[in-house]
Amino acid sequence: MPFPQIRIVMVETSHPGNIGAAARAMKNMQLDELYLVNPVLFPHREAISRASGAEDILEQATVCDSLSAALEGCQRVYGASARAQRTIPWPQLNARECAEEVATLPGESKVAVLFGREQSGLTNDELEYCNTLLHIPTNPDYSSLNVAAAIQVVSYELHMARLGEQAATVAQNDDPLATADELEGLIEHLERVMLNTGFLDPDNPRQLMRRLRRLYQRSRLEKTELNILRGILTSVEKDRR
Amino acid sequence: MPFPQIRIVMVETSHPGNIGAAARAMKNMQLDELYLVNPVLFPHREAISRASGAEDILEQATVCDSLSAALEGCQRVYGASARAQRTIPWPQLNARECAEEVATLPGESKVAVLFGREQSGLTNDELEYCNTLLHIPTNPDYSSLNVAAAIQVVSYELHMARLGEQAATVAQNDDPLATADELEGLIEHLERVMLNTGFLDPDNPRQLMRRLRRLYQRSRLEKTELNILRGILTSVEKDRR
Repeated sequence: MPFPQIRIVMVETSHPGNIGAAARAMKNMQLDELYLVNPVLFPHREAISRASGAEDILEQATVCDSLSAALEGCQRVYGASARAQRTIPWPQLNARECAEEVATLPGESKVAVLFGREQSGLTNDELEYCNTLLHIPTNPDYSSLNVAAAIQVVSYELHMARLGEQAATVAQNDDPLATADELEGLIEHLERVMLNTGFLDPDNPRQLMRRLRRLYQRSRLEKTELNILRGILTSVEKDRR
Repeated sequence: MPFPQIRIVMVETSHPGNIGAAARAMKNMQLDELYLVNPVLFPHREAISRASGAEDILEQATVCDSLSAALEGCQRVYGASARAQRTIPWPQLNARECAEEVATLPGESKVAVLFGREQSGLTNDELEYCNTLLHIPTNPDYSSLNVAAAIQVVSYELHMARLGEQAATVAQNDDPLATADELEGLIEHLERVMLNTGFLDPDNPRQLMRRLRRLYQRSRLEKTELNILRGILTSVEKDRR
């Protein structure tokens, strides 16, 4: 039974020991794609020591210099985040719900789960790349998990969901989902049209782009749907000329 | 809602860092009773450093010189164990099933979960103290979790069981959803604009309207989002005049 391809993305991790522990956690749960965005120290002996048998995951890890490079080709992006107040409520699911959702995606989908810095997590800009924020329910008075521990819990939930899927029947969706870069193209196109019609005022953008991005992130656009929306925008542009 | 009192018992742990990481994992998941049976190095600065804010769990930890002392007063004992062939088949549940079972025990029950040595786990003699063996489903080719990672997963499952349905129902959205007639208004508006720009050909409508309707139905639009989309359409109409 095909299960989506899962990519664990660690953003600007400070401690190489955490990268090693994450590799071990991933391998324990049958995940093998580790992406490191600007790791502070990598490769490093401390990572190898904590990996403890999962050195292959470290060796084949992909080091990137930008988040967008790490997300290329992914149809669905989850961002691990403490449950916090944000100006705009982004769609939020707990780790189990995310894993259950992943299990319903078409088998050839590519999924990324982002984990932020040890001290400060992911920035708001980074969270905007995400379809959904993933949170791990914790003690409200002491909620900060070690990043490798968080990766352990999420990898475990994904493994449980995969095991669960082996019995269940899925395949509700034949049409492939749009990728993150295709979605980016749509958002830019939409912004251009809105600027041209005057709906988006660059001096007073309100939260328009963020809200639209959130809407289309959440919708899990299929490629065909995305192409229709792009087609509408192009027809509007041609029409005004 | 009373939940049984949970005791995490670590048997002859070698690395103090693992004890610290276990304390942090426990506190994250609202557990606070740590029992250490003959720890090799404790107390130790490495434990404090990895506890990272959960030093209170270490300070109030109970150090015992025998397993039976650590289990005193417990009605139910689970032993974490890789899934192995044993001479006598002991009752075995996975971590989630154990947590669900704990949730069904009377609220005043005392429960212990045992975790063995880093290299060799629990001995057969130690497993005989257990009502049930607890296993964490893993990669069959690489099944040995770090002991603190195993405690993280089990503590997490116990926390999820405690939260019960609270965790499943996430209040994700404060903004009210658009009604069916508002959605209808959006679809009609979209159709009008598409006819005007020529994107929708009434003689060859393809499946355009059906696909767009399906997309926006699925997105569960909020009122604010719907108003933004209507605003964009209105600005396009004004602009072409």
